[in-house]
Amino acid sequence: MNRRRLLITGAGGFTGRHAVRSFAAEGAQVTAVLRHPGNDGGSRGAAPIFPEGVQVHYCDLSDRKAVNEMIQMVVPDEVLHLAGKNSVPESWRDPLLYIESNVMATLYLLEALRSLPQSRVLVAGSRLKFKAGGLAGPPHPYSLSKTLEELASLAWGTLFRQPVLMAEPCNLIGPGPSTGFCSLLTRYIVTLEAGGKPPLFKLSSRYDLRDFLDVRDAVKAYSVILNKGETGTVYKIDSGRQRSLGEVAEHLVSRSAVAVPLDWGPEASEAQDQNALNQTQREDSGAVVPDVQATPEVNVATLGWKPEIGLETSLTDILVHYRTNGEGGLV
Amino acid sequence: MNRRRLLITGAGGFTGRHAVRSFAAEGAQVTAVLRHPGNDGGSRGAAPIFPEGVQVHYCDLSDRKAVNEMIQMVVPDEVLHLAGKNSVPESWRDPLLYIESNVMATLYLLEALRSLPQSRVLVAGSRLKFKAGGLAGPPHPYSLSKTLEELASLAWGTLFRQPVLMAEPCNLIGPGPSTGFCSLLTRYIVTLEAGGKPPLFKLSSRYDLRDFLDVRDAVKAYSVILNKGETGTVYKIDSGRQRSLGEVAEHLVSRSAVAVPLDWGPEASEAQDQNALNQTQREDSGAVVPDVQATPEVNVATLGWKPEIGLETSLTDILVHYRTNGEGGLV
Repeated sequence: MNRRRLLITGAGGFTGRHAVRSFAAEGAQVTAVLRHPGNDGGSRGAAPIFPEGVQVHYCDLSDRKAVNEMIQMVVPDEVLHLAGKNSVPESWRDPLLYIESNVMATLYLLEALRSLPQSRVLVAGSRLKFKAGGLAGPPHPYSLSKTLEELASLAWGTLFRQPVLMAEPCNLIGPGPSTGFCSLLTRYIVTLEAGGKPPLFKLSSRYDLRDFLDVRDAVKAYSVILNKGETGTVYKIDSGRQRSLGEVAEHLVSRSAVAVPLDWGPEASEAQDQNALNQTQREDSGAVVPDVQATPEVNVATLGWKPEIGLETSLTDILVHYRTNGEGGLV
Repeated sequence: MNRRRLLITGAGGFTGRHAVRSFAAEGAQVTAVLRHPGNDGGSRGAAPIFPEGVQVHYCDLSDRKAVNEMIQMVVPDEVLHLAGKNSVPESWRDPLLYIESNVMATLYLLEALRSLPQSRVLVAGSRLKFKAGGLAGPPHPYSLSKTLEELASLAWGTLFRQPVLMAEPCNLIGPGPSTGFCSLLTRYIVTLEAGGKPPLFKLSSRYDLRDFLDVRDAVKAYSVILNKGETGTVYKIDSGRQRSLGEVAEHLVSRSAVAVPLDWGPEASEAQDQNALNQTQREDSGAVVPDVQATPEVNVATLGWKPEIGLETSLTDILVHYRTNGEGGLV
């Protein structure tokens, strides 16, 4: 039996590391794409260690020629495109970097794949794209970049009849290097447990609701989408359950071996006022911005996927990860 | 009185040449941006000759650093951004070039202008962007590039509170180097008048309707929008009257000194069948593509502008232009 050749971009990132391991275990012939030797191209610690048999390919995806050469060399049957920039504050500092990394790099990849018209591509989008209808403006350049990426990717698929699929995962959590909320709070706890004196951890608002999903479940969803998904479709991936930041913080704090001082953020009514204020400011900005109408979106559950790892397991595994590797040791 | 400093990109193009002359005559201190010395950066003939006092600046707008240096040097009060690629067939051959030229170059310009928050920018968009609601896909990569350009430009203006305005002109015609329908047919006629034997000119369909507007009227509309337009608004610029290609061809042929053989294209019913077929194929493509909801659009007539040059004058001036300069002499 021929093993399918799968190219995974962003293989050094939080999701990428899990994806490489999971698809290799499934039997795929995985090529893991990293920006350059020695690290993951970001600031998330040491170079990943991949299972035996995984090919590593170094490529700066913002180099059109290099992307083309990579595709000609690897000739993938499938591509899981996880690479991209995802820090909202950084997107304010260098918005063009976000357009280049999240829009142009994706188009370089799709353009290179035109020579392989059977090759299926799954592009990881974001829930933080513009909301459909009525939003007076994008909240930040990151959101703009992911909105343009989705629009351009699906249009490219239509124009050139390429099998392009999109995924929109919710907040992914789990063991491994991440800059998400659960990871940051766990590192704070582990630092305290080790006798460190980190600055007081502040929750933006304990009442903020998020849908957290274990990254290993998300990777299984990517596999299902690549196998069975319909071209041109946007697949939402979520646990289906909203949790408040306060609830998750309490879960983590209750597992700590030491006292965990926290600044819990504003009370509910203040938080709501602040949200309302932000909303008003946004609506009053006076500028007219094109709305992106909702693409018909499908939940990946329609393909038979369902999450299997509960929140408590994810949080335990994050704690174990940082207790094992140290708060800085982001292996 | 201080003269306003106006930067015009794409100054070597059809509209750009008229814009430079017109704004200079209005008293603006114009910097005309060309890609490189010796030509207009395209394939439309000799380098333009600008009125005295116009500064010429050479800049490849797809070079982010060069764009930034230009803005720091010129410090414009206003920018009329006409540069871009606009050939549908070329966009099929090199779609990434269209994204780079029509989206990234525009964002490089807007990013450079963040250092001049008072500087008003008018970006020339296209009627060929995606139609609102229900279109199953963009018709060609050019359309995709102009859709993304408009979305990104207006979003940039909102995110960074920059005074960004958009214009959507209809089909611009008039004297000067152009690759539009009226210009191509006139060059054919002038070639015949000079005794040449060009291949038979074929109309795609004589029943196709277009809104033609004289480029000099459009340039006046740009001036009105820069002066009085509201930030974040898309201004439509048109004559308000649809003409069939057959009607326009008859106008031009009737002015010819010689017989003008034409292939008039399919009869009405065939043409309609073909249009219906194209439409069906598009709808059957099966892919879901995000729709771009209509941005609230305003006709520039609301700012007091109206067209002053009738179709017959435009056509006469095009004939005079090519009879004076020769069919190849695109001065």
